[in-house]
Amino acid sequence: MNQSHSETAIIRIHCPDQRGIVARVTDFIHRNNGNVVALDQHTDRDDKRFFMRIEWELDGFALTREQIAPAFEFAIATPCKMTWRIDFSDEIPRMAIFVSKMSHCLYDLLSRYRSGEYKVEIPLVISNHTDLEEDVRKFGIDFIHIPVTAANKAEQEQKELDVLRERGVDFVVLARYMQVLSENFVNHYPERIINIHHSFLPAFAGAKPYHAAHARGVKLIGATSHYVTSDLDAGPIIDQGVSRISHHDSIDRLVQKGRDIEKIVLSRAVKAHIERKTLVYNNRTVIFN
Amino acid sequence: MNQSHSETAIIRIHCPDQRGIVARVTDFIHRNNGNVVALDQHTDRDDKRFFMRIEWELDGFALTREQIAPAFEFAIATPCKMTWRIDFSDEIPRMAIFVSKMSHCLYDLLSRYRSGEYKVEIPLVISNHTDLEEDVRKFGIDFIHIPVTAANKAEQEQKELDVLRERGVDFVVLARYMQVLSENFVNHYPERIINIHHSFLPAFAGAKPYHAAHARGVKLIGATSHYVTSDLDAGPIIDQGVSRISHHDSIDRLVQKGRDIEKIVLSRAVKAHIERKTLVYNNRTVIFN
Amino acid sequence: MNQSHSETAIIRIHCPDQRGIVARVTDFIHRNNGNVVALDQHTDRDDKRFFMRIEWELDGFALTREQIAPAFEFAIATPCKMTWRIDFSDEIPRMAIFVSKMSHCLYDLLSRYRSGEYKVEIPLVISNHTDLEEDVRKFGIDFIHIPVTAANKAEQEQKELDVLRERGVDFVVLARYMQVLSENFVNHYPERIINIHHSFLPAFAGAKPYHAAHARGVKLIGATSHYVTSDLDAGPIIDQGVSRISHHDSIDRLVQKGRDIEKIVLSRAVKAHIERKTLVYNNRTVIFN
Amino acid sequence: MNQSHSETAIIRIHCPDQRGIVARVTDFIHRNNGNVVALDQHTDRDDKRFFMRIEWELDGFALTREQIAPAFEFAIATPCKMTWRIDFSDEIPRMAIFVSKMSHCLYDLLSRYRSGEYKVEIPLVISNHTDLEEDVRKFGIDFIHIPVTAANKAEQEQKELDVLRERGVDFVVLARYMQVLSENFVNHYPERIINIHHSFLPAFAGAKPYHAAHARGVKLIGATSHYVTSDLDAGPIIDQGVSRISHHDSIDRLVQKGRDIEKIVLSRAVKAHIERKTLVYNNRTVIFN
Repeated sequence: MNQSHSETAIIRIHCPDQRGIVARVTDFIHRNNGNVVALDQHTDRDDKRFFMRIEWELDGFALTREQIAPAFEFAIATPCKMTWRIDFSDEIPRMAIFVSKMSHCLYDLLSRYRSGEYKVEIPLVISNHTDLEEDVRKFGIDFIHIPVTAANKAEQEQKELDVLRERGVDFVVLARYMQVLSENFVNHYPERIINIHHSFLPAFAGAKPYHAAHARGVKLIGATSHYVTSDLDAGPIIDQGVSRISHHDSIDRLVQKGRDIEKIVLSRAVKAHIERKTLVYNNRTVIFN
Repeated sequence: MNQSHSETAIIRIHCPDQRGIVARVTDFIHRNNGNVVALDQHTDRDDKRFFMRIEWELDGFALTREQIAPAFEFAIATPCKMTWRIDFSDEIPRMAIFVSKMSHCLYDLLSRYRSGEYKVEIPLVISNHTDLEEDVRKFGIDFIHIPVTAANKAEQEQKELDVLRERGVDFVVLARYMQVLSENFVNHYPERIINIHHSFLPAFAGAKPYHAAHARGVKLIGATSHYVTSDLDAGPIIDQGVSRISHHDSIDRLVQKGRDIEKIVLSRAVKAHIERKTLVYNNRTVIFN
Repeated sequence: MNQSHSETAIIRIHCPDQRGIVARVTDFIHRNNGNVVALDQHTDRDDKRFFMRIEWELDGFALTREQIAPAFEFAIATPCKMTWRIDFSDEIPRMAIFVSKMSHCLYDLLSRYRSGEYKVEIPLVISNHTDLEEDVRKFGIDFIHIPVTAANKAEQEQKELDVLRERGVDFVVLARYMQVLSENFVNHYPERIINIHHSFLPAFAGAKPYHAAHARGVKLIGATSHYVTSDLDAGPIIDQGVSRISHHDSIDRLVQKGRDIEKIVLSRAVKAHIERKTLVYNNRTVIFN
Repeated sequence: MNQSHSETAIIRIHCPDQRGIVARVTDFIHRNNGNVVALDQHTDRDDKRFFMRIEWELDGFALTREQIAPAFEFAIATPCKMTWRIDFSDEIPRMAIFVSKMSHCLYDLLSRYRSGEYKVEIPLVISNHTDLEEDVRKFGIDFIHIPVTAANKAEQEQKELDVLRERGVDFVVLARYMQVLSENFVNHYPERIINIHHSFLPAFAGAKPYHAAHARGVKLIGATSHYVTSDLDAGPIIDQGVSRISHHDSIDRLVQKGRDIEKIVLSRAVKAHIERKTLVYNNRTVIFN
């Protein structure tokens, strides 16, 4: 957790593993008089791939914001064949929430937002139903009703995309949104749509996972937050959680217990995304400290 | 936990749900001067099925052991259409362990046996390899080597069945035994073969689940103990456990972390079975308190 | 879980352990044509004490509501020296929430209330601050500001008691309320005030438990919900939870991670209380299924 | 997990926080042609203290083993005011186990040792009782019986210290050893004696924690592994774990459930110590990845 008062720059990197990367990156920052406030790196030996997140204070840094990217690209990223991005802590991401009828994840996200736990802006909530309109509006957030049917799906998704673009939304959270997004929609927000699925994937992908869990007689139920890809319930997993159940738990009870896991798991994923601590490679995630 | 010094009788029941079953069963024991030391019941409202386990002290009970079953059958089980069985706490079950090359579950079971945690006899361990022979023998337990190939499987399974019968084995624990048992073998020990599978089933059934878990990028790994049926990795689940992992965990590390869950989950399942606390219905288990 | 459409009666009992109690109680209900929908019992062998919760449908029951208590008292409770109480599922309990400045537990409770997860009425929230006034009012719930100082504490508590009585409040939930209630106040609501303490009690009782946890260098933080007694943080524990932490977690981070455990643990305790599944004996709780 | 075939050097550091430490350390290794296989660092902002563990391959490194320490001391450690140490992966630590009468932790450690999970030597086990002599000897490990009374404690501890010195023991694991070690003994092995205490410290320090947990009515029991200091049960915590319990669990049952947590928690602590992943500062531990 960055407790410094200065704003920070955050670079996330992955590249082929090779000697001396940490030395090169930290030296770059050090020579420019940067104070590193967080550093986490990981080497995947099977994939021979290097991953890193580094965050440093902008106060006193020798380069302006505009100079950092080209300098880093030239000195380090290009020679090391890096895929990378830079963000700044005062660029607050803008998040849209998609919901249907269930309110538990929505309230959990909005109450965290309201209490200041999330450094994020939430300009709007989109829903294919109107059930949660009042719940959203009382937080002072716009509620946009875009009903979707098999017939009008393409057209309605276009409306959604238009709204998201107009309102400058950076990423989307599906808080138990009960519509499958088309490949076209997903492609507009690669690694920027977070879903919560109510099972410990890959078990019980698809519809009605609590019913399937009950039928199989499992002793644990779970939830999975993941980035949405065009492959249903198969995107890179950000976080998972489980809860112990027993033969006493009816399907209704599973649904109810499951909600608590869904809330926790989704909230942690959203937090990691907001804090720029996620990185996707090869359909898996690295979640930095 | 029964701390009485008297031996006890244990009845496990399931039957169609109907009014007054608990009253009838407890009245039967009460009228015969029995002291109930444990009672657990469950009603599955979806299946309209009633489940019960009741344990009472034999000291001072008005019926002899031989009289209990026919009396209970006549007075209660038949009219209530019960499927049921009776056991006595001083009938120590006899357990065989099947292993291959990995020792962690084996040692965990044998050390619990040695410390008196399990009220069980272990006359023998069977293995398709000789790697663990010394490990077994030092506990004073017979080790029987029965190698299995695709060609000799039926014949070798017959040897195993012969040994189990000769040694009076009641149930079998597959402690990471890396052979699939034939339907014929399984049918000799219905609901009496306990396996440990190294994933949270139904995710990653079949071979190499840790490799599959790593490839999918899950954030939890798990283990599942279940009764073996002829349907591979699909039998009724007795217990499950999980452990949190991260991108730092290589496959080797998953294997290592997984071992600790496998040990715990298998040991709990074996304990529940020994204490006659399991009941299978409809490919699911009820695990009594 | 009771899924029947009929309303139910719920009896909770504790008494000296003795033979045949379950038989007597279930027979009482069975003879009066009651259909048991839940039964859970427990015998504490050290204390030689018997505990039971039984719930049955009122539809078709041979006794009227008014007749049940005297009949049960005469036939069973008196001879068995029982401490007991009866409740009816359609008597919806009325709950007040006390808060200070932190909103996380408040929102969690109110969103569960709003979604219908809790079968409860919440007529009002009381706070010693005004920070959360808007948050409460937007749920359509009265917010009453009763500031408390060392000087006016007795008088202000009297105001609180007056309001609770006027509004027919059955039990009180302290959702991170940062005032210690006097013995006088507590005595008005014995076993009917639920607190959430932000540590795994008995570790870190008293003020600033996250600071204390950080200083001690623990690897788990926790939360404890308990009934409030006049002995600070020493009342009977209803539920507890923990979360794994590491050296990376600053005190701020502990506070944040802790909130999620506080929410879950408090919500489970409140649910158990609402569903009449708690029973206190000897400063410990029995939590029925 | 180091999967390289080359042996490695491991440096653990703590020092006042300051700019550029990671750059200096990684540059030192990079310039000498070292290949970093693991790096983990942590900054405690409250204490303004920096912590780091770095591991690199010795194959091809420009300095000999003997040259590394003075070079590092001169170039980096002295100017940065570091407290630090270096270890080499092929220096296998030698571990002694102290036990009394309970075997569960002992078996867990020895079976991990036997299966090769621990890269450690275990030349001997010391006990104040003879109960576990056979259990130890069957693993081919020396068992030394050193009974301790209040009268002969100083003298017997001297015997223990003599044996440990003669046998070249690096660190000691107290696997439910039921004797308090004197300050004199502890001072011979600072941060090199690992104990398992059967509660989630600081709750229930001292004797009979399961009895105390039962009396308090907690809903979780735990275990804590820590380095032993002269302050009983107050040393730096390495790891902790908990298990959910209920009112059904008698003290005997708590003891039994507790054993499983003790085993896991102690085994993780021992593993972290063997792999040189622990660092103590200010009575707290940093546990590196």
